[in-house]
Amino acid sequence: MKNIILTTIALAAFAIAAFGQRAPRPSSPDVHKDNSVTFRYYAPKANEVLLHGEFLEKPLPMTKDTSGIWTLTVPPVKPDIYPYFFAEDGNQLADPNNTYLFANERFKRSILDVPGDQPLVHSLQNVPHGSIQYRYYESSSLGRTREMLVYTPPGYDAFGNKNYPVLYLIHGGSDTQETWTKVGRANFIADNLIAAGKAEPMIIVMPYGNVRPSPMPDFTKDIINDIIPFVEKNYRVIKDKDHRAVAGFSVGGGQTLNIGFTNLDKFSYICSYAPFTMTEEFRKNFTDWKPNAAEINKNLKLFTVSVGTEDFLYESVKQNLAMFEEKGVKVQPIIVSGGHTWMNCKLFLAKTLEQLFK
Amino acid sequence: MKNIILTTIALAAFAIAAFGQRAPRPSSPDVHKDNSVTFRYYAPKANEVLLHGEFLEKPLPMTKDTSGIWTLTVPPVKPDIYPYFFAEDGNQLADPNNTYLFANERFKRSILDVPGDQPLVHSLQNVPHGSIQYRYYESSSLGRTREMLVYTPPGYDAFGNKNYPVLYLIHGGSDTQETWTKVGRANFIADNLIAAGKAEPMIIVMPYGNVRPSPMPDFTKDIINDIIPFVEKNYRVIKDKDHRAVAGFSVGGGQTLNIGFTNLDKFSYICSYAPFTMTEEFRKNFTDWKPNAAEINKNLKLFTVSVGTEDFLYESVKQNLAMFEEKGVKVQPIIVSGGHTWMNCKLFLAKTLEQLFK
Repeated sequence: MKNIILTTIALAAFAIAAFGQRAPRPSSPDVHKDNSVTFRYYAPKANEVLLHGEFLEKPLPMTKDTSGIWTLTVPPVKPDIYPYFFAEDGNQLADPNNTYLFANERFKRSILDVPGDQPLVHSLQNVPHGSIQYRYYESSSLGRTREMLVYTPPGYDAFGNKNYPVLYLIHGGSDTQETWTKVGRANFIADNLIAAGKAEPMIIVMPYGNVRPSPMPDFTKDIINDIIPFVEKNYRVIKDKDHRAVAGFSVGGGQTLNIGFTNLDKFSYICSYAPFTMTEEFRKNFTDWKPNAAEINKNLKLFTVSVGTEDFLYESVKQNLAMFEEKGVKVQPIIVSGGHTWMNCKLFLAKTLEQLFK
Repeated sequence: MKNIILTTIALAAFAIAAFGQRAPRPSSPDVHKDNSVTFRYYAPKANEVLLHGEFLEKPLPMTKDTSGIWTLTVPPVKPDIYPYFFAEDGNQLADPNNTYLFANERFKRSILDVPGDQPLVHSLQNVPHGSIQYRYYESSSLGRTREMLVYTPPGYDAFGNKNYPVLYLIHGGSDTQETWTKVGRANFIADNLIAAGKAEPMIIVMPYGNVRPSPMPDFTKDIINDIIPFVEKNYRVIKDKDHRAVAGFSVGGGQTLNIGFTNLDKFSYICSYAPFTMTEEFRKNFTDWKPNAAEINKNLKLFTVSVGTEDFLYESVKQNLAMFEEKGVKVQPIIVSGGHTWMNCKLFLAKTLEQLFK
């Protein structure tokens, strides 16, 4: 006991020596047994702090105590993973006391994980786990070295000899190559569905889709000319269109449509989630598009477009669906409730994984 | 041109629809051609904002303009990667406009990357790249599933058949399993030294070293009973002590000494960086330690302790060195300038990689 106290004192001294005296670090977020959640934020001079969260209908005001800590407890939240942030007098900030951050280049958000009593499709469960690999490839299309993430399924290891189909999975507009794993939990979703026999073991490639300052079509070149050859050189994959799929969310959902339909010789599966299609590339590819619909319908094994009815892109996606239907291209709409969120993204991916390569 | 304008408008509308109106997002940090750096931070109500950075002797005040943006340009900074943060009226915050964050559970810091004209040992260079893998293992010692990162060198792939030596590399006290790659760039350092023929190709395992609420010795059990067996089952490794090393920084440097010297049958290389040794585990292992120094010196191929002369642990590390010397255990001190920093950590690792498995 004495040793433990001494150790604690030593560690506290260490912390102060290493990092200096600091502002209070209130615990946040605290998920309670009934799934209600308490958020805390230290801002002694703020006039107003609002909690914004994708589990809320609208932002809610927090209350300041005499020590300068703002607090709010929200009623039980449905188990899931939700982005949230604090607005301190209009300034949007991640929760400084939460290690779990949203991987994004535009905004700083934190992640609330409400695990619940029962494992969810994205939960870390006691099943065989695949591996996520951070790989570096030379993009001849973009003239630089880029990072991609590659999920390999359980059983894919240095001693195996099986070849696998591949899903190319693209993030949203200001997300990064890490968003599909860090926020979307693509690896755990795949682990769980494979363990349950609901999904085929597959490789999932998560490239970095943002191309700046160049326009979008350069990413199509990157994926076709650089990423696919890199994957097929470095992994045990089945190298034909019937074992190759492309999917993506938001801006990545628009990229998915562009990449898929301009490379129908390469993909038999195209799955677009809440696509953002107000891009030059989309207009160029689809405005005067005269597809051979019969040929496409024969060769495409799956073409889905998913969206939530509260998604701000819902009307736009309905127009996209109408466009494909008008041109005779068979599309499976997947319409659910909810908005333009990663909660829906996870559902869309889970549905896709159950449909691919069967 | 018209299309580009329309696209820009559409993207702006998209951003507002998706994220709402927001506070200004000034560019920060801006590294200029001469390696001077401008930092910007929006905080219209703050009375004082200080820039803290490991490239500074002491915190420097920033200046507010009429739009509420605080700015500071610092003179040319020596090329390296540095943690920094803003102190807004005492509240320590990461730079909200910098995507590059320090992976840590205690504090929120941003990373300044000053690349310089010449590639550094940690720079992404045009050399063959290894892969970082995120793996999940069942820890029987800790009764939970834990994540570890595994670097495999260039040429280690599904088609290879060579076996490799392994370095087990532990992060600092409140760091995470990602800190050695995200901040320490262990993967690029290894890539570059292997490409230059200065380091042997090896596997580097970066476990999660924090064990809460249990005491430290449980991590020793975890690494010996769970992590090493997992690695040796799942990777092509050479399974003897002469091809196994342990290294770590700060709290991880203390863990390195405990793990190494209580498992001399398992490690021929022990490399401790700025070790924090004011722990119950260290006291228990070393206070009444009566080592067979001759045997240890014969069997250990390398034992180094590294530290910077401005490290707040410098005196403590000198006492550690004296203790080992007093007991007749041969130790190679590596004393450099600088403090308890990840800039030094990278140097220590580079030095270690050049010494291992030769």
